[in-house]
Amino acid sequence: MNEFMERIKIITWLLVFAASPLLAADTVEQWSAFEIALNGPTNGNPYVDVKISARFTQGDSAVEAGGFYDGDGIYRVRFMPETQGEWHYVTESSSAELNGKTGEFTVTKSSPHNHGPVHVANTYHFAYADGTPYKELGTTCYVWEWQPEALQEQTLKTLAVSPFNKIRFCVFPKRYQWNTNEPILYPFPGNPAATNWDFTRFNPKYFQHLEQRVSDLQKLGIEADIILFHPYDEGHWGFDRMPADADDRYLRYVIARLAAYRNVWWSLANEWDFMKQKKESDFVRFGEIVAHDDPYHHLLSIHNGSKIFNHTLPWITHASIQNGAAVEEPGRAELYRDVYRKPVVYDEVKYEGNIESRWGQLSPEEMVFRFWNATVAGTYCGHGETYKSDDQILWWSKGGLLKGQSPARLAFLKKVLDDAPPEGIEPIDKWQNPGIGGQPGKYYLIYLGKQTPTNWDFQIPKPPLGKLQSADGMKFTVEVLDTWNMTVTPVPGVFTLKKKDGYFYGDKNGRAVTLPGKPYIAIRIKRVSE
Amino acid sequence: MNEFMERIKIITWLLVFAASPLLAADTVEQWSAFEIALNGPTNGNPYVDVKISARFTQGDSAVEAGGFYDGDGIYRVRFMPETQGEWHYVTESSSAELNGKTGEFTVTKSSPHNHGPVHVANTYHFAYADGTPYKELGTTCYVWEWQPEALQEQTLKTLAVSPFNKIRFCVFPKRYQWNTNEPILYPFPGNPAATNWDFTRFNPKYFQHLEQRVSDLQKLGIEADIILFHPYDEGHWGFDRMPADADDRYLRYVIARLAAYRNVWWSLANEWDFMKQKKESDFVRFGEIVAHDDPYHHLLSIHNGSKIFNHTLPWITHASIQNGAAVEEPGRAELYRDVYRKPVVYDEVKYEGNIESRWGQLSPEEMVFRFWNATVAGTYCGHGETYKSDDQILWWSKGGLLKGQSPARLAFLKKVLDDAPPEGIEPIDKWQNPGIGGQPGKYYLIYLGKQTPTNWDFQIPKPPLGKLQSADGMKFTVEVLDTWNMTVTPVPGVFTLKKKDGYFYGDKNGRAVTLPGKPYIAIRIKRVSE
Repeated sequence: MNEFMERIKIITWLLVFAASPLLAADTVEQWSAFEIALNGPTNGNPYVDVKISARFTQGDSAVEAGGFYDGDGIYRVRFMPETQGEWHYVTESSSAELNGKTGEFTVTKSSPHNHGPVHVANTYHFAYADGTPYKELGTTCYVWEWQPEALQEQTLKTLAVSPFNKIRFCVFPKRYQWNTNEPILYPFPGNPAATNWDFTRFNPKYFQHLEQRVSDLQKLGIEADIILFHPYDEGHWGFDRMPADADDRYLRYVIARLAAYRNVWWSLANEWDFMKQKKESDFVRFGEIVAHDDPYHHLLSIHNGSKIFNHTLPWITHASIQNGAAVEEPGRAELYRDVYRKPVVYDEVKYEGNIESRWGQLSPEEMVFRFWNATVAGTYCGHGETYKSDDQILWWSKGGLLKGQSPARLAFLKKVLDDAPPEGIEPIDKWQNPGIGGQPGKYYLIYLGKQTPTNWDFQIPKPPLGKLQSADGMKFTVEVLDTWNMTVTPVPGVFTLKKKDGYFYGDKNGRAVTLPGKPYIAIRIKRVSE
Repeated sequence: MNEFMERIKIITWLLVFAASPLLAADTVEQWSAFEIALNGPTNGNPYVDVKISARFTQGDSAVEAGGFYDGDGIYRVRFMPETQGEWHYVTESSSAELNGKTGEFTVTKSSPHNHGPVHVANTYHFAYADGTPYKELGTTCYVWEWQPEALQEQTLKTLAVSPFNKIRFCVFPKRYQWNTNEPILYPFPGNPAATNWDFTRFNPKYFQHLEQRVSDLQKLGIEADIILFHPYDEGHWGFDRMPADADDRYLRYVIARLAAYRNVWWSLANEWDFMKQKKESDFVRFGEIVAHDDPYHHLLSIHNGSKIFNHTLPWITHASIQNGAAVEEPGRAELYRDVYRKPVVYDEVKYEGNIESRWGQLSPEEMVFRFWNATVAGTYCGHGETYKSDDQILWWSKGGLLKGQSPARLAFLKKVLDDAPPEGIEPIDKWQNPGIGGQPGKYYLIYLGKQTPTNWDFQIPKPPLGKLQSADGMKFTVEVLDTWNMTVTPVPGVFTLKKKDGYFYGDKNGRAVTLPGKPYIAIRIKRVSE
């Protein structure tokens, strides 16, 4: 079944069977959002005057979740249960009207397309909470959700048939080249013309809309990598230079609203170091707030301009990196794994497109090449597209239609990833042959990049022997993958190992593999179970 | 004047004019060691029973320096004054006999060849305390100082005429391939045959010898990168698996003895992660002890096997990295700068040699190539040599003679570095052209590596403009450096900038540079002062 049909099936299933995940109910499925909605005080400033949270308990387990004021006298507390069975709650509030409310509900087994939130697995990789591997393949549309409604719907349709399972986008609107239109909504009450925002209140409609889009992505099986701050404002609205108390209140509000959505990832910032009004220590504070307030510990990172954040900090779950050159070859790409001992996601590696800026003019071949380099290096790569357009709609910031040639090839890569070992692809012989990824003794993916050989002598680095004296006799199949033309060509027969030297095994009959003499070829080698 | 003549001059100068740096005297020069020597108790175990230290003061400044028992009833406290003028001291000891001793002395201006200890400068580089740039160019002879005396002397003679200004070596003896001889001395009293060491005492002769060799290196202008722990023991002597209290006492003893030598760098370990009896947290403790006990904050790092230490920790001054592939091209080499924002020293990048192991069979060309890649990437590289030898003496561990062809080329590189901007070489256009290092608008070093062009169109990345509208008209000279054949060929005339596009300037007359069509060529471009 292809991606598109799979998604249509999910959507149909949800429409027919699934309750809206945000309706309070006596029953909710695991990793979906249970919500308490209460009427409360409307006098004064409910956003700052009233504290509300709830304590959710199951046996000895307890989870504290912050609540928020949603306007119109309604207060909400959301909760994403991580275990099945009976749960109880009791609210805590500075308002007597909201305090001490109790209730109980049943958490049922998740439905087939709900695998829970994504977490780190096997140090360098990801998996859903139910153990299903998650092979990250992301794109970026910075402010797609603040464009006119029809364009948003088009973006969702494009994503539904794309290979992408993660999208990076900003909470705040963006002002930049090709992004000079105003957003459809504003996060704070105030006069947009005068930009005199009331940072002590929020515009619930703004955040309701954001939630709707996160929910829409969830239905498509796409993770929402939510960018909490960014510099592409430069004081136009001033959301990049709010006072510290407004920053912190905003963060807590977003967490209270969104943390119960299982597909949320937190990105503290895009190009954090380009936010000249903020210090590095501000982002440490932000990270600590998110890590503390998010009861579910969603994935959390921060994206850089030219200055990489300290991803060794304990609350950072994975290294989200912009680097314009690191994925030009696997030998570069793998270097950050050793530093961080965390998943490395090259969320920005320049974009496929044809704009004048050097960061936005990769050929589609080069974009795909970069993904493959990242893959065999045991890391993950991010897509983006900046083709010039009369309507000024570039995918990279506004979404709409994908015009490039890389997404089809990335869908091919996605199939290869889904077929790869669930534990992830590791560099196999990194100080000698960085183009070899896989799981030693089990699976190898050798990427030849821009090389165009017509022949390849079968050989693999010495596999782990365990109790064996030798790997002689182990059997493997070989397939030739044309990563650009999206073909998989099996090589007939099996290859049987025979020791070559202290480092390599070849085929016992000296077999070689004929290659098409084209660039972008990969060789996939799988152990034959005996 | 060449390196050799320079060193002969230094040695002569020292013999004629300089007092032995470790004699207590009323006068000592800045950054040399002042020593207090006192007779004290010999009963019990002076190494653990007696605490001794001294407080050195000058006006409001005070420095606490730990002392040590040197055997034969003698206790010593050493101090390296970092400022000139009058200093006072008072000893503090658990022994009444050693407590409260006072004295004063004068610190004079340092002599011409004493530039003080090396510290970090300009984030990614190094300088001596007097501000003189220090362009690191290191080698490794792990246990040269524990070989027979004649071999040690030969090593010093070899170093005296080598380009190296740093050498890595171990405090403890080493047992490994080509290293199965016993050391000339042992660090602890005990029976070597039975390896029943008394870890509560030290063998002063061992450490006196080590100091002598550090001092010998100092006279040659060579920094001593002292490796405090290493795994190449595997229980043979057991110095890799001492109890924690013995480890800590050993560290404090070494620091008390050696910290006053200005040419000391601390390397907590070689291949720390290969020490299976130690945890990562042990090395954090070691680092904190060194950072706390060394009053002068000598450079401090730790070298890895396959697991890089967390060099973002605040007490680590520079990233000392082993990586067998990172310096194969500048685009890889520069990546760690962004992570650490500290100097990056690739202390181990495989060795020039011809042994069977892949880490010891670089060609001399490849060794030199790696140094140049590191250089233009704004990092530093380390040399080592593993040529097979009938006498089993490989430079890499025992010293002796250098047999390789890289050192002469590294001397050529050293001259280039000494001629480069004092503030260091930075990557200039790293996400596009990682082969260009320099200081923007001032100095460029373009390394062509294995490429063999016969022509190069003059162009440099857009220099910083400051208040200028354009860099048009700026003038530069060009030289062609053959880094293997060690020639510098000036290109006649000057090149005058004219804007090419948004990113590059070329020559206003479209001039190109003829190149020899050989590998390992660099182009050196210097601004002509107007």
